[in-house]
Amino acid sequence: MNKQCIVMDLGGTNIRVAVADEALRLHGRMSEPVALSLGPDGVIAQMARLARQSVGESGTDRAGVTGVVIGAPGPLNARTGTLLSPPNLTGFKEVPLRARLEAELGVPVKVINDANAAALGEFQFGAGRGYRNLVYLTISTGIGGGVVIEGQVLEGTSGSAGEIGHTTIDRHGPTCLCGNVGCLEVIASGTAIARQFSERLAAGEPSLVRDWLDGRAPTAEDVARAAHLGDPLASAVFQDAAVAIGLGVVSCIHIFNPQVIVIGGGVSKAGDMLFDTVRDVVSRHAMPVPRADVRVVPAELGDDVGLMGAAVAAQQDTLVEV
Amino acid sequence: MNKQCIVMDLGGTNIRVAVADEALRLHGRMSEPVALSLGPDGVIAQMARLARQSVGESGTDRAGVTGVVIGAPGPLNARTGTLLSPPNLTGFKEVPLRARLEAELGVPVKVINDANAAALGEFQFGAGRGYRNLVYLTISTGIGGGVVIEGQVLEGTSGSAGEIGHTTIDRHGPTCLCGNVGCLEVIASGTAIARQFSERLAAGEPSLVRDWLDGRAPTAEDVARAAHLGDPLASAVFQDAAVAIGLGVVSCIHIFNPQVIVIGGGVSKAGDMLFDTVRDVVSRHAMPVPRADVRVVPAELGDDVGLMGAAVAAQQDTLVEV
Repeated sequence: MNKQCIVMDLGGTNIRVAVADEALRLHGRMSEPVALSLGPDGVIAQMARLARQSVGESGTDRAGVTGVVIGAPGPLNARTGTLLSPPNLTGFKEVPLRARLEAELGVPVKVINDANAAALGEFQFGAGRGYRNLVYLTISTGIGGGVVIEGQVLEGTSGSAGEIGHTTIDRHGPTCLCGNVGCLEVIASGTAIARQFSERLAAGEPSLVRDWLDGRAPTAEDVARAAHLGDPLASAVFQDAAVAIGLGVVSCIHIFNPQVIVIGGGVSKAGDMLFDTVRDVVSRHAMPVPRADVRVVPAELGDDVGLMGAAVAAQQDTLVEV
Repeated sequence: MNKQCIVMDLGGTNIRVAVADEALRLHGRMSEPVALSLGPDGVIAQMARLARQSVGESGTDRAGVTGVVIGAPGPLNARTGTLLSPPNLTGFKEVPLRARLEAELGVPVKVINDANAAALGEFQFGAGRGYRNLVYLTISTGIGGGVVIEGQVLEGTSGSAGEIGHTTIDRHGPTCLCGNVGCLEVIASGTAIARQFSERLAAGEPSLVRDWLDGRAPTAEDVARAAHLGDPLASAVFQDAAVAIGLGVVSCIHIFNPQVIVIGGGVSKAGDMLFDTVRDVVSRHAMPVPRADVRVVPAELGDDVGLMGAAVAAQQDTLVEV
């Protein structure tokens, strides 16, 4: 009998589910907007229903399903499978996701950080193929990180490791949502880019973005688009964030001496405008030996990266044991 | 026949040598001031002579010596065993230490970063006993780092990993000797503490240290001693560095989710004045889950830490293979 694992990606917008076989192929893939308005109980019921539907859809024998691996937004405790208070999941506070879904589905459930799952996905199937040592950064609303060392994801003592977005790069900078000072996330995430741009716009600096807004607030995407068009304010704000990301990448090079740093997330879609700056900062500021080992590349996988990474995690069984 | 390994600690001041047996006991321990004035050739000859003397002194059968492990100051390439241009070893530039000593001694030689060796020493025999996940920081002339994950030292792709002292904590800060911007080392090392104090003294700020100097430059030790006595300028400078070290420790907690962070080096001898501040920064700024897992403690081992760590590395054989 083949062993199969249900893999899930719980995001702030969608829940994705599939069944992964031993060859890490995904079957019965489904996706649904997450029913946040129903609260944690409603979302957990939704996850259980989708899991059952996916098993049915995939044609899998339910008896062959050995467990569930869920990539979920941090902060979470992977040892206990508890979601703490993820900013992306309004209304979730200390939700024992693992225990609740084990009760619903009757198989063992593991909860891992979504950025760690994505790191494993890129490592096995994406921009990290063929490398042993990888650092993954996702720059979107927040900044998430995941690290693969000699093929194993860095979990840490309770599965909280890899929070590169929550390391100080400006000790005199603003306080981050996480409570730390001048984190990479509070300087260079999409949210931070939009905030810094809004502040300078409100202070009266000229920008063509002003004409696009029609009352709504500017987004990081607006800033990137305007920077591409040569708008001086948008370019300045975007470049300031890109340099900060570059310094964060240099720190990762000095700490992990990896072979590849993979950058994904919405802000990475700015392409060369981001990567040229990051690579320039690396070439000027990283130490020669680890710099010679590393490439900085865009993520390759799309919406399935979390599911694929959860499948790798299920197979590796590198998860924290209780 | 018992297997034995020669272990060496090449520092900027002394060379230490011993023979480690399979139970990680050290025999034939010796130490000599490093003959830097003789240049790399002279130092390598000195190392070979000390290794032979230590084997003789230890009563070891030379045929039982299987190899040499050397902890040496970075930057170095552990894959090739080459010292690059360690600031502590004047005159050393691209010195192929491994190849040279293999030719001299006729056994395999491994070169590892001295902070990684010290991390392994504290992990096995010192303040890290009983833990699986440890971060070691040494705050002295520079700031070195070493990381142990699930009992294995983090080497990285070419043995350059763990350079926590060379991560940016002040993106608008001064340039570090390593070429990076606002590194922890350039803000909070002993050298940085002495420099910042000197600048403020030169600007005319009052301090009782002024009476101690008699023409010489102030040291980090002067600053720590005066801070202990309540000198306002010394206290301000020392506390600024201690807060920066605390922020570096928070970043380590968020990245590695370790069980213990061990702080050694000359600056750590300031004791509670340093550790109280670091622990206060951790309690205010680290995220709850990884914070609950971790203790921040002083290093326990003395001058033999590097030799003990090299012995652990020899036994673990976690070194980078060529």
